[in-house]
Amino acid sequence: MATAPIIDTSAVLDLSEPLQLDGGQVLPGVQIAYETQGELNAAKDNAILVCHALTGDHHLVSDHPITGKPGWWVRMVGPGKPIDTDRYFVICANVIGSCMGSTGPASLAPDGKPWAMRFPVITIRDMVRGHVALLDALGIDCLHAVVGGSMGGMQTLSLAANFPDRTRAALVIASTARHSAQNIAFHEMGRQAIMADNEWREGDYYDHGRGPEKGLAVARMAAHITYLSEAGLTEKFGRRLQDRHEKTFGFDADFQIESYLRYQGLTFSGRFDANSYLYITRAMDYFDLAEEHGGPLANAFAASKARFCLVSFDTDWLYPTSDSRNVVQALNAAGKPVSFVELSAPYGHDSFLLDVPALDRVVAGFLG
Amino acid sequence: MATAPIIDTSAVLDLSEPLQLDGGQVLPGVQIAYETQGELNAAKDNAILVCHALTGDHHLVSDHPITGKPGWWVRMVGPGKPIDTDRYFVICANVIGSCMGSTGPASLAPDGKPWAMRFPVITIRDMVRGHVALLDALGIDCLHAVVGGSMGGMQTLSLAANFPDRTRAALVIASTARHSAQNIAFHEMGRQAIMADNEWREGDYYDHGRGPEKGLAVARMAAHITYLSEAGLTEKFGRRLQDRHEKTFGFDADFQIESYLRYQGLTFSGRFDANSYLYITRAMDYFDLAEEHGGPLANAFAASKARFCLVSFDTDWLYPTSDSRNVVQALNAAGKPVSFVELSAPYGHDSFLLDVPALDRVVAGFLG
Repeated sequence: MATAPIIDTSAVLDLSEPLQLDGGQVLPGVQIAYETQGELNAAKDNAILVCHALTGDHHLVSDHPITGKPGWWVRMVGPGKPIDTDRYFVICANVIGSCMGSTGPASLAPDGKPWAMRFPVITIRDMVRGHVALLDALGIDCLHAVVGGSMGGMQTLSLAANFPDRTRAALVIASTARHSAQNIAFHEMGRQAIMADNEWREGDYYDHGRGPEKGLAVARMAAHITYLSEAGLTEKFGRRLQDRHEKTFGFDADFQIESYLRYQGLTFSGRFDANSYLYITRAMDYFDLAEEHGGPLANAFAASKARFCLVSFDTDWLYPTSDSRNVVQALNAAGKPVSFVELSAPYGHDSFLLDVPALDRVVAGFLG
Repeated sequence: MATAPIIDTSAVLDLSEPLQLDGGQVLPGVQIAYETQGELNAAKDNAILVCHALTGDHHLVSDHPITGKPGWWVRMVGPGKPIDTDRYFVICANVIGSCMGSTGPASLAPDGKPWAMRFPVITIRDMVRGHVALLDALGIDCLHAVVGGSMGGMQTLSLAANFPDRTRAALVIASTARHSAQNIAFHEMGRQAIMADNEWREGDYYDHGRGPEKGLAVARMAAHITYLSEAGLTEKFGRRLQDRHEKTFGFDADFQIESYLRYQGLTFSGRFDANSYLYITRAMDYFDLAEEHGGPLANAFAASKARFCLVSFDTDWLYPTSDSRNVVQALNAAGKPVSFVELSAPYGHDSFLLDVPALDRVVAGFLG
């Protein structure tokens, strides 16, 4: 595939109006950090919004400013790639509640101090309200498509359901229309790990050292396990030892999987805000698109004009295929056009970010 | 079934000899706390050893001294029950490394101070060495059977493999012959949660307040999720709210599953020693019966004279049926008598502790 030097076109939008939130509060002074690739055509009808996952951000193809790593979906988005920036104007916005430029708990409140835990609890729909405000500012009435994996898929569903005139297509990958008890359980455990860290200080750590890094690392370790399949972990790590021939009969990271998890936890703490982790996991746990629309999930899609595509992975135990099938059935019940495929990939939930050529073909084919 | 008042026959054995450990160290002054039910016959051939799981203890049928709750397997063990104390002399010993009476990191070392992290890293086989020393003291040359679920199943396999003359039968429930990468990952995350707690103090917390209770609670929360099935969690909790009609848009335990997990974490911290949790999870992670015997798992059973029974549960994703099947195939390869059943039960790994009548029938039938 063709490649071209990436031009960083990231920007920050100051919303002119406060954001009305599901929790009843109004959030003033909202900023939305976003990145765009490609060119918006004169009709403004070639825009694709890509929604990021829990710990993602708007650095879709540009290098991450903290880690220096390539954008999180550079394999999918670019000239000649499945989300083709030669044809489409591709937008990715940092969700509100996050910590990479959009307004979140680390941002300054009107009193000049960080919001911290005074930040209102937000929902997936509130994040989407931020995206829609950005589309308004860009003059985009209706997207060619909205696309997202994992929490990005939740935003995708929410936008198609709640703003039915704003997109002609919705591509939902490895996601769900509501968080299960097990999903909530893992998140709650992660939140408790953060809150158990003395350095959390009830969220007021911004002026006190490095914050609850250990607790956040533990939360990330647990979450990371859920992103990978059991078989994938066995293939990648098994019981192999880390830089040694014998077990040490101690508590060092004897096994490669231990070393890997510790590294994942550590690096995550260096790039992500712990309070954002609390708020975003809460938003995900609150997500129940059917409940939001008064009962049957089909109701949520009644006014939608979009065509849908759902993709699941056979080894994803975080949002298993049954979660996608549930959405497909609701769309069928609502009489909406939907295609659905379960892809075979060994990586578990993380498959949507990794090298799965079949996914590339589905994405390219669906976007047209 | 008949019931009778439980007579507490718990006792503590002081081992006359130091225990030689797999790690190369020698553990002096070992105590083994145990409980017996029923009567040992004159031939001393009616004894059944029951091995407990990670956070269990020897209070098999007697009330737990801290929580006051009934013994952990009172539904399975007693007069007229599947493990029939009218016929069998039933022994349950607290594993070394634990904290309920047998020697562990909270015990005093020869210098009069708690071992804490100076306690040697032990293995499942070391735990079994403690059990065998107890059998020696009781004058029991060969058990009628050894029985255990989860980590108890690992001890059961280890005893049958490493002390092949000491039992005529081995009943292994919801267990495995080795810890997988995913198993190790969850344990490592739990250990990191404990060690991240400032109150852990490198393990030297015994004279300083209440220890790393928060970290231990987080570890327990994560482990607890793995003990339950996704379907079981959905059935038991779903997305139901806890004592409220609306979400609070805060970080209280809105959902019942959150409240339940917090309670599980809290009560566990009140009854279990955090350092014991480190040592016992380490022993489980080190467990690889095939490796211990130089390669193929069948080797481990070459000298065994026992008949085996393996039981798995279809909803157990911690030690799934494939783990049991792996053991069954090795026993077949070794030409040993083995029966195997996968039971259907909705509770996940915890099924071995819960009301599964089919399990009662398998246990009663196998023990004869």
